[in-house]
Amino acid sequence: MKRPSGRAATELRAIRLTRHYTKHAEGSVLVEFGDTKVICTVSVESGVPRFLKGQGQGWLTAEYGMLPRATGERTQREASRGKQGGRTLEIQRLIGRSLRAALDMGKLGENTLYVDCDVIQADGGTRTASITGAMVALVDALAAMKKRGQLKQDPLKQMVAAVSVGIYQGEPVLDLDYLEDSAAETDLNVVMTSAGGFIEVQGTAEGEPFQPEELNAMLALARDGLHELFALQRVALETE
Amino acid sequence: MKRPSGRAATELRAIRLTRHYTKHAEGSVLVEFGDTKVICTVSVESGVPRFLKGQGQGWLTAEYGMLPRATGERTQREASRGKQGGRTLEIQRLIGRSLRAALDMGKLGENTLYVDCDVIQADGGTRTASITGAMVALVDALAAMKKRGQLKQDPLKQMVAAVSVGIYQGEPVLDLDYLEDSAAETDLNVVMTSAGGFIEVQGTAEGEPFQPEELNAMLALARDGLHELFALQRVALETE
Amino acid sequence: MKRPSGRAATELRAIRLTRHYTKHAEGSVLVEFGDTKVICTVSVESGVPRFLKGQGQGWLTAEYGMLPRATGERTQREASRGKQGGRTLEIQRLIGRSLRAALDMGKLGENTLYVDCDVIQADGGTRTASITGAMVALVDALAAMKKRGQLKQDPLKQMVAAVSVGIYQGEPVLDLDYLEDSAAETDLNVVMTSAGGFIEVQGTAEGEPFQPEELNAMLALARDGLHELFALQRVALETE
Amino acid sequence: MKRPSGRAATELRAIRLTRHYTKHAEGSVLVEFGDTKVICTVSVESGVPRFLKGQGQGWLTAEYGMLPRATGERTQREASRGKQGGRTLEIQRLIGRSLRAALDMGKLGENTLYVDCDVIQADGGTRTASITGAMVALVDALAAMKKRGQLKQDPLKQMVAAVSVGIYQGEPVLDLDYLEDSAAETDLNVVMTSAGGFIEVQGTAEGEPFQPEELNAMLALARDGLHELFALQRVALETE
Amino acid sequence: MKRPSGRAATELRAIRLTRHYTKHAEGSVLVEFGDTKVICTVSVESGVPRFLKGQGQGWLTAEYGMLPRATGERTQREASRGKQGGRTLEIQRLIGRSLRAALDMGKLGENTLYVDCDVIQADGGTRTASITGAMVALVDALAAMKKRGQLKQDPLKQMVAAVSVGIYQGEPVLDLDYLEDSAAETDLNVVMTSAGGFIEVQGTAEGEPFQPEELNAMLALARDGLHELFALQRVALETE
Amino acid sequence: MKRPSGRAATELRAIRLTRHYTKHAEGSVLVEFGDTKVICTVSVESGVPRFLKGQGQGWLTAEYGMLPRATGERTQREASRGKQGGRTLEIQRLIGRSLRAALDMGKLGENTLYVDCDVIQADGGTRTASITGAMVALVDALAAMKKRGQLKQDPLKQMVAAVSVGIYQGEPVLDLDYLEDSAAETDLNVVMTSAGGFIEVQGTAEGEPFQPEELNAMLALARDGLHELFALQRVALETE
Repeated sequence: MKRPSGRAATELRAIRLTRHYTKHAEGSVLVEFGDTKVICTVSVESGVPRFLKGQGQGWLTAEYGMLPRATGERTQREASRGKQGGRTLEIQRLIGRSLRAALDMGKLGENTLYVDCDVIQADGGTRTASITGAMVALVDALAAMKKRGQLKQDPLKQMVAAVSVGIYQGEPVLDLDYLEDSAAETDLNVVMTSAGGFIEVQGTAEGEPFQPEELNAMLALARDGLHELFALQRVALETE
Repeated sequence: MKRPSGRAATELRAIRLTRHYTKHAEGSVLVEFGDTKVICTVSVESGVPRFLKGQGQGWLTAEYGMLPRATGERTQREASRGKQGGRTLEIQRLIGRSLRAALDMGKLGENTLYVDCDVIQADGGTRTASITGAMVALVDALAAMKKRGQLKQDPLKQMVAAVSVGIYQGEPVLDLDYLEDSAAETDLNVVMTSAGGFIEVQGTAEGEPFQPEELNAMLALARDGLHELFALQRVALETE
Repeated sequence: MKRPSGRAATELRAIRLTRHYTKHAEGSVLVEFGDTKVICTVSVESGVPRFLKGQGQGWLTAEYGMLPRATGERTQREASRGKQGGRTLEIQRLIGRSLRAALDMGKLGENTLYVDCDVIQADGGTRTASITGAMVALVDALAAMKKRGQLKQDPLKQMVAAVSVGIYQGEPVLDLDYLEDSAAETDLNVVMTSAGGFIEVQGTAEGEPFQPEELNAMLALARDGLHELFALQRVALETE
Repeated sequence: MKRPSGRAATELRAIRLTRHYTKHAEGSVLVEFGDTKVICTVSVESGVPRFLKGQGQGWLTAEYGMLPRATGERTQREASRGKQGGRTLEIQRLIGRSLRAALDMGKLGENTLYVDCDVIQADGGTRTASITGAMVALVDALAAMKKRGQLKQDPLKQMVAAVSVGIYQGEPVLDLDYLEDSAAETDLNVVMTSAGGFIEVQGTAEGEPFQPEELNAMLALARDGLHELFALQRVALETE
Repeated sequence: MKRPSGRAATELRAIRLTRHYTKHAEGSVLVEFGDTKVICTVSVESGVPRFLKGQGQGWLTAEYGMLPRATGERTQREASRGKQGGRTLEIQRLIGRSLRAALDMGKLGENTLYVDCDVIQADGGTRTASITGAMVALVDALAAMKKRGQLKQDPLKQMVAAVSVGIYQGEPVLDLDYLEDSAAETDLNVVMTSAGGFIEVQGTAEGEPFQPEELNAMLALARDGLHELFALQRVALETE
Repeated sequence: MKRPSGRAATELRAIRLTRHYTKHAEGSVLVEFGDTKVICTVSVESGVPRFLKGQGQGWLTAEYGMLPRATGERTQREASRGKQGGRTLEIQRLIGRSLRAALDMGKLGENTLYVDCDVIQADGGTRTASITGAMVALVDALAAMKKRGQLKQDPLKQMVAAVSVGIYQGEPVLDLDYLEDSAAETDLNVVMTSAGGFIEVQGTAEGEPFQPEELNAMLALARDGLHELFALQRVALETE
């Protein structure tokens, strides 16, 4: 088996995390997983959605979008279609759940964090890149809140990152790009904490069903890749 | 640990599959997983969506809905809100992917199967009940197509069923009802073929992250439950 | 003249009213007029719409829907079309007006009753079945409110029921099914109180205009049918 | 009983029908029922909706709107709300059904007539004024089609007009204005052909239910008013 | 060069301003620029949009619409399409900005003025007719507010009017009608105050780019036309 | 007068045009006017909108968007609001008209060019930056079409660029940033061809009306700035 990119089965794409990418947001990161590029911003607003009012806790919500020509063929702009598609909603729900797992909402105060992940170039794995990059932007946003005196305690419980794995030509491979993703028999997205617990495991057979042992092989591969991603997040956050 | 329903950890709720539940659809099944009740219909229309035209193959698409008072508190009707929510879209995409795995689209001819799963009473596990029930309605719809001479070959590749498992009070339990679902630490939906391969595995940590060994314990529990569900589907389809 | 169903011109279809059909709603009735089957639920919520706030009176509002394959040909789901059609809005406005006539809103307190009528199988007369069945669910919902101490006085003024009549092959017939409805020259829906007063009279010439004497013949037929329906409502409510 | 306007119970408001009111439409009439003023245009387009294609017959469809400040309090523009309300849809369906009864669609050819009724000032009875005025515009539009050679036969079967009647302070009165309409116990809209047959009869009890004899008294009153309206339509059409 | 209408290059169409055109609105004017006819109403409501609350100042907002058959070909009703088009939004934003320039919002109190401009017949220049006519309705609405004691000071700073100019067959012409507008090389809309200052200048090359000297020639022509329009507004307001 | 940025009145911000910014689009440019950053892509699709079919000419259409946190305060995503706002539609109509002026549509063949301008960071002047940057992406897209043999003739008639000018503290200044824009008395956007003709001139008085001589001073300033922008476009296009 030879991957289209020439990568080893266990090899991530080149990962780049550029902090302070835009100037207005409390946290702003350009994350690149190879040719997949996503701008992740985290915005802080005081107040919480109605269902949480008066409970003394905060909230985090996520939105996801793609520029129309982030993809090989132009896709219609959701704003002009008048609604977000099912794929978009599914991904933004996943990003939101994943990042909420990083926080202790009770320590956030009655504030809402808006996470926006906008794909400016897509080459597979946009949701996993989004989660991994937005996590770094989230840490920056919390730091901005501390600086402004908006936090009494640190709400950060743990770091979260995500990666995709799949069965490509019969073998498990890490961090699928678009060519692999289109041809993979199975596609698995794994969201994990830095302590090694799973937040989300979403596997889909695109062609043939997958077997328990294949699932375990993919999960092992994902865990190794995720440990690399946690290291890269750490490096990015330590560099000013 | 004691389950609110008094069931054993490995015990499914009472499952009922009532075929020919309504008279117009080519396949129509009322599926009950305990107090969860879903009407699943499969409708046959000639023609396929534009992206498939002229390729000589068929398509299957699914829609999911809930009556406003299927739930403990009334939820607003999506038709009057003017759009389907993210949860609805996510579930109907899952149902569609799962049932497409049961079919060889090349043998379906240029026909589209519309699967409609409408929850009339919800008590947890509506998506897994929907897949399991709609699979039976799908077999009936294919039989109706054969009778009318709309099929030259049998497009059915394999049966598909789905069940949820979770970690409840520290222990893996099968087929969560609403009370368990609300309190579960982890929730896993498994869609499998009768041959034992996975179509979808979707696990979500609601509270604490889950560990690989917990995932494996839940998957084993799911597989046992799914074998029971395949047997119940078989019995339902053999009875006229 | 022979009716497709073989019924006499003055004969209702088999009417069934199944109370407590689903478990969550304060009132829940499955109403069947022959093959027409509608789930009617009544949900109680405290508070009233803005235009009534602070006036010490209650409100009742109705919504109507059809499962996509309730009909001979699948109809597109209104939730996925993004809006309710004109026919749906017209019917739910009629159901709401009809049932409000049964109540003294001043005795309801600042509560809102949501009536949901969802057609699971259609064979003509879905709006009249909805009103007749929802009336029974409404009585159950009021009983639930009394039990919970939400009512100081009884808001029920009178029972309401509805039936369709039409001119079929030149003769007035009661309670049209789909085959008759499609072929009828005139279609009249009558909503009446148990005391014999009219709430709504809606007659439409589908082909030839109708004459005053035909209108009177149809109204007489409707009144007889409605007295039977009031008796059936009473029986249903007296049985536990 | 004294009517707010001082009219006799059997007296219509001042009715005016101004033909050729705007210059672009094939038929264009300003209809006034007292202070209620509606611009009715009929536009001819070749082709028919999909469900009628290839059947060699025509179609007529109607739309209804109100300028935001046609009413005492400004109402929100439906175009900016993003949808037409239930009342609007109900009225435009009624106008369409009523005017289709005037035509033999088989003689219209594969053409569609768009009837637009836009209320520029409202004072009760906008739907009956719309039908009565649009009927005149429809005759003008047919004449324009004949002139252009678009018609081989005359599709006009009969004239149609509409009026409201009601029970006001216990007595039947003709052609309710806004003050009466708001206070009426019962409101009845009658659409009739010039030959005296009913097209639509829609009666609604706003307060107390109404009795069969009241219905008959109202219908008699309506018929007298409608004969006057047919005469006024005739006069308008005979004057150039 | 000969204008289709035979007008001189510097000649406005026949302008008519009919005040008190409809009875409900605080200000209501029918404005006619030749065959272009627009109903302009101004409605007064107490309260302001959220972004202005508590600042002691008022607001003015405008909406624009066209009856479907105001134009040569019927255009689809925006209310039934479910949204206002880009052209509509652009025009109503222009009307709003233009009329806000006439007022000192600080003297309006916390009131909102809703300006509605509805085109009942279009023949070019609907936006300039709307601004010119709505300005007169606005003066009437302020008078109504004074009468009711809703104003302590006069918020009117200056009169505003608008006209279009263009390059038609190489020459600048004033107040384009539809025929000219369709054929013009350049189209310029000018909104001015009675003191001669510009509020808006919007020029668009439809074919060839335009030169600074052409712009200046058009602006001069516009200014002359606008002085005539201010005189006509004055006359209309002085006549009761 | 001192500009907040310290620039001279006649000084543009630092302008950067980065070609081939993303990899999928036929033309892709990141344009920066100081801190305003817009990704401009041009996508080529065969076929034209219905109103142009069979006329042997092409079309160009533009869409504009802003990432939610491109601005100082997060703005709601238009895709999740369900519609594009008036400002967005106004800007994208302006971009489309401006760029169409650069092309001879008859030489484009039956192809459609989609221009997407997405603001990733906003600091004033996003519409003028979009036009200036998208013009460069358009040239690249035409080159890609030539390479693929999609063009027989060169459709490029002329280069187009845009800049804003304004009256800030009484003096005309070039290329307003956000701080100036918010405080400017007048704001003028000028779209020009490289030959010096105007395509669009849109001036708006934000506070006091502006005088003809001020307009002329602003136009002169704009022309000088535009000549610089044309030079920068040329340099960018000559560099590979």
